[in-house]
Amino acid sequence: MPVGTQATVKTARNSDLQQDGWRIILCNTYHLYLRPGKEIIEKAGGLHSFMSWNGNILTDSGGFQLFSLSRLRKQSEEGYRFQSHVDGSTHTLTPEKVIKLQMAFDSDVMMVLDECLEQPSDRTRTEESLELTLRWAERARKVHPENHQALFGIVQGGGFPDLRRKSADVLAGMDFDGYAIGGISVGEPRKQMMKAVGACIDHLPEKRPRYLMGVGKPEDLVDFTAMGVDMFDCVVPTRNARGGSFFVPGGHLNIRNARFADDMSPVQPGCRCYTCTTHSRSYLRHLFIAKEWLAPILATIHNLHYFSVLMGKIRMAIDERRFSAWRREWHARRRAFDPSGY
Amino acid sequence: MPVGTQATVKTARNSDLQQDGWRIILCNTYHLYLRPGKEIIEKAGGLHSFMSWNGNILTDSGGFQLFSLSRLRKQSEEGYRFQSHVDGSTHTLTPEKVIKLQMAFDSDVMMVLDECLEQPSDRTRTEESLELTLRWAERARKVHPENHQALFGIVQGGGFPDLRRKSADVLAGMDFDGYAIGGISVGEPRKQMMKAVGACIDHLPEKRPRYLMGVGKPEDLVDFTAMGVDMFDCVVPTRNARGGSFFVPGGHLNIRNARFADDMSPVQPGCRCYTCTTHSRSYLRHLFIAKEWLAPILATIHNLHYFSVLMGKIRMAIDERRFSAWRREWHARRRAFDPSGY
Repeated sequence: MPVGTQATVKTARNSDLQQDGWRIILCNTYHLYLRPGKEIIEKAGGLHSFMSWNGNILTDSGGFQLFSLSRLRKQSEEGYRFQSHVDGSTHTLTPEKVIKLQMAFDSDVMMVLDECLEQPSDRTRTEESLELTLRWAERARKVHPENHQALFGIVQGGGFPDLRRKSADVLAGMDFDGYAIGGISVGEPRKQMMKAVGACIDHLPEKRPRYLMGVGKPEDLVDFTAMGVDMFDCVVPTRNARGGSFFVPGGHLNIRNARFADDMSPVQPGCRCYTCTTHSRSYLRHLFIAKEWLAPILATIHNLHYFSVLMGKIRMAIDERRFSAWRREWHARRRAFDPSGY
Repeated sequence: MPVGTQATVKTARNSDLQQDGWRIILCNTYHLYLRPGKEIIEKAGGLHSFMSWNGNILTDSGGFQLFSLSRLRKQSEEGYRFQSHVDGSTHTLTPEKVIKLQMAFDSDVMMVLDECLEQPSDRTRTEESLELTLRWAERARKVHPENHQALFGIVQGGGFPDLRRKSADVLAGMDFDGYAIGGISVGEPRKQMMKAVGACIDHLPEKRPRYLMGVGKPEDLVDFTAMGVDMFDCVVPTRNARGGSFFVPGGHLNIRNARFADDMSPVQPGCRCYTCTTHSRSYLRHLFIAKEWLAPILATIHNLHYFSVLMGKIRMAIDERRFSAWRREWHARRRAFDPSGY
């Protein structure tokens, strides 16, 4: 899922996303609750209508944003009391309210409110937090109506495999429509991520989507798919694009590099995206150096296309029962990647 | 002509411009000379190829940018010595060098180097400057090869009608492919602009394009066309777009206005642009308030479409010999414009 925090995947038009075959994007409940607010989205007829997006939408619960963005956060059994990062106004979010908000947004996949913990946290603190998150999940489950909206539970448990397992087992017992693995941040060491996912993934119902939140880089998509993950969301393709980093098979190119100044070839020869079929590295570098608006736009088009193609290849390899072989080849290419030869 | 200063019309893709039927854009010789530089554009095979633009390109001479942007500018009979606004490096631009640069860029319309004067200037200073500009025009004309590139002269003469006339007469005698009226800045009172154009337009060959530089707003396009002007360039559609100002028949809407917060209608009902056929005022306001990348992108699409449609209507009215009547109606609509009723 491309990330459309504020009801827009940064720099991308809906038509860009459709053209690449993206069928679901992620939006942030926390951000949309604060701006433009529930009333306006309701008046528009829900989030799809508000942003004119015909595909699916998953809304996260705000747990992570409350943890990372809000000010003067006060957490209790009831939920969160916090100050908006936008204007300092005071708000309350509870497990029930977060579901009601997502019902007003009419997203296709809703997420339960969870508590995100600073990492690393000790076992006692992690256990307490997990218990709270599970009680909150139960409360969310109770107010989830029998409607067309799916509701996913979120596995927590920090760096403790047994707590991750317990979390998965308890959530599975609540019969959610899908299960997310949370509490993993983008910068986290791969080993830790692997450990957390490995501990719980087999305890989540195989017939339901399993979603690794906030992950990841191309190699993460490949390797966590191998572990059984079905869904991902990450800002990496779009955020890196805005920084001038273009994904290419095996690695990435930093287009600001001086060696691209007079390089008239496309970023990725053979790529079918608008950027690669229209513009040269030389021109793209010029746009980035001159801080032009078109620079992040064209880079986002390419990176989202790259991720879309990658996920398509993963799906096809699985369908054709040759994913393991495909994955070995993919990693071999990655190890052999030499950006200077690009 | 939409303005593509640094070989990009800000936020717009080439495909956007093509879709609206834009057949010529303006790029700035001064900017492109400093960055990415002549060598890179030459290596790309010219500016069209560098920016992958299949339409026509007019490159201005840099006279106005030397006046408004460069530092420690020193002007002599020979030309300009100045420091780059990008990195402080020292450069020289002469009437001959500016033509050579534009030949390397392979633009379709080249402009002669002129001296832009701070306004108002007294008669003696204006006369001296005009004489220099005319000598520079002669020098540029001499090095203009018989190739596919057109070369336009630029009328100067500040606020003095007789100097404007003299300038037009002398330039007409040099047999340029087209004639520009320069030295008019965007903020200048309309009366003054009218006076300057009125003084010289009939002294410019009717069979050659007459181009009013740096103008203008919709009402300027309508009224100066009535005076005989054939070509315009202006940052107004794109710059105003980035500020949240959407042009609509008769006026414009500032989309940040609170009354649009829950307004689910398109910016301009009936408009066929991507923005109006896809998104609501409410969503567009949200994007601007949330400072999202997509905001200026969608606004630029609409404003360029609006200007393209306006120029199309002007051309059609002229073709059908009903321009005066059309213009009267257009102004009546403008006088009756009530943004709150929009």
